[in-house]
Amino acid sequence: MANKKDFVKEITARDDDFAKWYTDTVLKAGMADYSPVRGAMIILPYGYQIWENIKQEFDGMLKKTGHEDMTMPLLIPESLLVKESELIKGFAPEVAWVTQGGTEKLQERLAIRPTSEVLFSDYYARAVHSYRDLPLKYNQWVSVMRWEKTTRPFLRTSEFYWQEGHTVHATAQESHDETLSVLDMYEKVINQFLAIPTLKGQKTESEKFAGAYQTFTLESMMADGRALQSATSHDFNDKFAKAFNIKYLDNKGKQQYAYQTSWGLSTRIIGGLIMVHGDDRGLKLPPRVAPTQVVIIPIAPNEEVLQAATEIMTDLQADVRVSMDQSDKKPGWKFNEYEMRGVPVRLEIGPRDLKQQQVVLVRRDTGEKIVTPIADVHTKVNELLEEIQANLYQMAKDHLDANIFTATDMTEFKKQLGNHRGFVKAMWCGDPKCEAAIHSETKATARCLPFKQEQLSDKCVYCGKPAKKLVIWAQAY
Amino acid sequence: MANKKDFVKEITARDDDFAKWYTDTVLKAGMADYSPVRGAMIILPYGYQIWENIKQEFDGMLKKTGHEDMTMPLLIPESLLVKESELIKGFAPEVAWVTQGGTEKLQERLAIRPTSEVLFSDYYARAVHSYRDLPLKYNQWVSVMRWEKTTRPFLRTSEFYWQEGHTVHATAQESHDETLSVLDMYEKVINQFLAIPTLKGQKTESEKFAGAYQTFTLESMMADGRALQSATSHDFNDKFAKAFNIKYLDNKGKQQYAYQTSWGLSTRIIGGLIMVHGDDRGLKLPPRVAPTQVVIIPIAPNEEVLQAATEIMTDLQADVRVSMDQSDKKPGWKFNEYEMRGVPVRLEIGPRDLKQQQVVLVRRDTGEKIVTPIADVHTKVNELLEEIQANLYQMAKDHLDANIFTATDMTEFKKQLGNHRGFVKAMWCGDPKCEAAIHSETKATARCLPFKQEQLSDKCVYCGKPAKKLVIWAQAY
Ligand SMILES: [Zn+2]
Ligand SMILES: [Zn+2]
Repeated sequence: MANKKDFVKEITARDDDFAKWYTDTVLKAGMADYSPVRGAMIILPYGYQIWENIKQEFDGMLKKTGHEDMTMPLLIPESLLVKESELIKGFAPEVAWVTQGGTEKLQERLAIRPTSEVLFSDYYARAVHSYRDLPLKYNQWVSVMRWEKTTRPFLRTSEFYWQEGHTVHATAQESHDETLSVLDMYEKVINQFLAIPTLKGQKTESEKFAGAYQTFTLESMMADGRALQSATSHDFNDKFAKAFNIKYLDNKGKQQYAYQTSWGLSTRIIGGLIMVHGDDRGLKLPPRVAPTQVVIIPIAPNEEVLQAATEIMTDLQADVRVSMDQSDKKPGWKFNEYEMRGVPVRLEIGPRDLKQQQVVLVRRDTGEKIVTPIADVHTKVNELLEEIQANLYQMAKDHLDANIFTATDMTEFKKQLGNHRGFVKAMWCGDPKCEAAIHSETKATARCLPFKQEQLSDKCVYCGKPAKKLVIWAQAY
Repeated sequence: MANKKDFVKEITARDDDFAKWYTDTVLKAGMADYSPVRGAMIILPYGYQIWENIKQEFDGMLKKTGHEDMTMPLLIPESLLVKESELIKGFAPEVAWVTQGGTEKLQERLAIRPTSEVLFSDYYARAVHSYRDLPLKYNQWVSVMRWEKTTRPFLRTSEFYWQEGHTVHATAQESHDETLSVLDMYEKVINQFLAIPTLKGQKTESEKFAGAYQTFTLESMMADGRALQSATSHDFNDKFAKAFNIKYLDNKGKQQYAYQTSWGLSTRIIGGLIMVHGDDRGLKLPPRVAPTQVVIIPIAPNEEVLQAATEIMTDLQADVRVSMDQSDKKPGWKFNEYEMRGVPVRLEIGPRDLKQQQVVLVRRDTGEKIVTPIADVHTKVNELLEEIQANLYQMAKDHLDANIFTATDMTEFKKQLGNHRGFVKAMWCGDPKCEAAIHSETKATARCLPFKQEQLSDKCVYCGKPAKKLVIWAQAY
C-alpha cells in the first residue's frame, strides 16, 4: 500500500477520503477542470472523448429505433415555462434568468432551459394535427442549466450536457411503451458499454420528475455504496397535452389529446463511470468507452524497437484505439500516468522483448502481465479487451450484490446503513409520510420500486401497517 | 412556368421575391421552424441532419490534424469578458445577460457566450507553462448567442450553432500558419462537400474580427448575387496573450508570450447551401451533404414491384443514403415533395418497368430521366451522385464567374452593382474613409482583399490616390 501510494502521490486514497479521491482523479487524469464561472466546469478532451463515445453509441441506438435529432432554442420565455404548474414548481428555484438582451432591458424574463418539455410541447401543439402525424420521436444533445449551490465535476454542476428525448404518441399505451423501451436502451448502454450494473424500477410519487405521470429509473451503486440515478424515463400521459392543448384528429375524425414522454442521459454518468470502476491508482475505463484502449510504451527503445512498435500500432489501428508514448519520460512515470488515465491495456516492448519476438501486455483491471508473441498480439489484445470489459462489469456486479441488504424494521434498517453504506430493501405501506420519515432519520431516499418485486414481510418497515411495495433505499449522489 | 408554379404552389418564385422564396423553402422543406423565443429557431430533423453531416465531415478533418474536441462553459462573467478591450467593444451591443440565478440576484452579470476567446485564454493562462505544453489545438461544437434585431432562419438568428476552434502556439509564424491551414480545410469542406465555390482573402481592418490581428475569410455568392461570409479564421498574434498573461518558458528558459488563433464555421452555411443551389421547386442538395441521396417511389405498386423496390433499396443501402416512400399519396405529390426537399436522385419503379427489368432515375439538378436496367442501378446511382455533386459545383462556379465585375471609377462601380447584383473588383488606396464612403454610397462592403491580387489600375476607385490593393466588394447577407 505504501508502495502504491508512492506511485500515485497526487491522488488521495479512496479509503482516506472518497470525495477527494474523486476530485483528484478527475483533475489529474485531465478529464475536466474548474472554470471562472461558479458551478460550471471545463470538460477537457479526455473527458469529452468519453462523452462523445457514449453519445455515438446511444445515438446509433436512437436512430435505429426511428428517433430523430434536432434542436430547440436555449431560452424559454417565462410565460411558457410556467404553463405546466408542477414542472415550474419543481424547477423554479434552479432557473438562471436572462433579463437583458444587448442594450435592451427585456419585457419578459427568459430562462436558460433547465429541461425542454415546454418547448417541445409548444411545438407539438402547432405541428400535430392528425393521427397521421404521430408519433414524433425527437431528441436533442445539448447542455442545460440548473443553478446549484454546491458543485462537483460531472456529478453536480450548474451546466451539464445531456440528451433529452421528447416523443408524442396517439395513445397512453404507446407513450407507456416508449418510456419503457427507452429505459431498456439506457440499460443496454449503461450495462454493456459502460460496464455499470443497474437496478430498474419506478420512482415514488415524491421522487418522480416534476410534471410526470410516471418516472422510471436505473439506479447504480458507486464504490462507496451510495446510489447514482443513472438515467430516467418519464411518461407524461396526457398531462402536458392538456396544459398545451396538443390534440389530433383520430381516424374516426374525433379530437384526441396526445400522449408524451421525455427521457435523459447526462454527463453525470461519467461521474458514475469513475466512481464504479476507479481505484487508488486512478481511473479504470471499460474498453468499449475508453478513448485509448491500448497504449504502447517502448522501453529503452533503439531503432528496431521503435520500428516494431510502430508496426504493431499500425496493425492494431484497424480495429483498436491505440496510441504510443515516445516521449523522453521514464517508463515508470508513463506506467503510472496511463494507469491513472485508466487505459485498459499497456503494451511494453524493449530490445530484449524484440529479440524474443514478444511483447508484455499489462491489464489495468488486474495488473496481470501477459508475455505474448508479436504474431499473436492483435488477437490477444482483442481477447483481453473483451475480458476486461466483462471483468469490470462482473466486479461491479459483485460489489452491488454484496451490498444490498434487507430490513424488516427500522433498527435493522439503521444498523445496515450504519455498518456499511449500500442499498437496503424494505417493504413500504405507500404513505409519503413514512418515506419522508425514513429520509429524515437515515438520509436515505427511496431510489425506486424495483420491477423485480419481493415480499420480504407484510408490514411497512416504518409504520408497521400493511405493506404494498418493496422499495430500494440508499443514500444517493 | 405556370405549370412549374402549379407544382410548388407553396413556394414563392425566386424572381418574384428571393427573400420570401428562401423562407418558404426553409419552412416547407421542414428544415427549421419559428420558435416562441424571439430570434431563435427550431432546427428540425431535416435541417439538423444536414448540420450533422457537415459536422462529421469537418470534425474528421480536425481530428486528423491533431485538433481535440472539448467544451467550455456557456456563461462568461462580465469581468472576464471585458478583459480584451477590442473584443468587448465589438460584442457589447449583442450580449444577452443573466442577472438572476435561482432565487439569488447575481453580484456580477454573466454573459451567454457570444464567442469564447476569453474562456480559452483564461484557461490557457493556467494550463500553459512550458514550450512542451504547446501547441494546444482545441475545438468545441456549441451554440452561441448574439442579440439580433431582425432574424431569418439559419442566416441571422440570435442563437446559432457553430464550431469554434481555439489554438495556442509558441510563435507568431505558427499561429499564422494554423490560421491559413484551417482556412484551407474550410475551403475543402465548402467547395467539395457543399459544392459552394468561394473566394479566399483577408478582411480589411474595419471588417476584421473584434480583437484579431488578422482575419481571413471565404466569401461565396448567393443566387441573387449577394455575398455570404462562409467561414472565417483569425490570427490573434499575441494580443490575447498580453491581455490574459499567457506566457511559457521557452527551451532556453526565457518567458515568452504565446500566440493564438480562433476560427468558426456556423449553421449560417446552411443558408448559403439553400441560396446557392435552390430553384423554384425548392432545395437542391449536393449528394455528399444530402440526408437522403436517393428516394425510391413505387408507382401503382403491386407485390412484385414492392419486392423489387425493397431489394434495390437493400442493395443501395451498403453505401447510399436511400429511403422509400410507400405512403398512399399520389406519385405527383411525392415527386414535388422530394424535389422540394432537394433529394438528388429519384428512383421510379412500376409494373411496366419491372416487366422490362428497369427503373427510371430522375436527376434533381437537371430533371433528366434515365431509364436504367435494374442490374446496373447501383453503379449508375453512384455515377449520378458524383455527376450531380460536380454539376452543382460547376453551375455555382459559372454563376460566380459570370457575376464578378470590375470597376475603375465610382460611376462604373455603381452601374455594375445597379445592373446586376454581384461582386465588384476595384482598387483601393487603403484608407478606411474610402471604404466607408463606398459602403454608404452603394451598400456594398469590402468582402476581402483576395489572395489572388490583380492590378486593375493604379488608382483607388474612390479617391484616385495611388492604389495599394485589389478589393472585392459586394452587398452581403
Ligand atoms: Zn408506512
Ligand atoms: Zn481611396
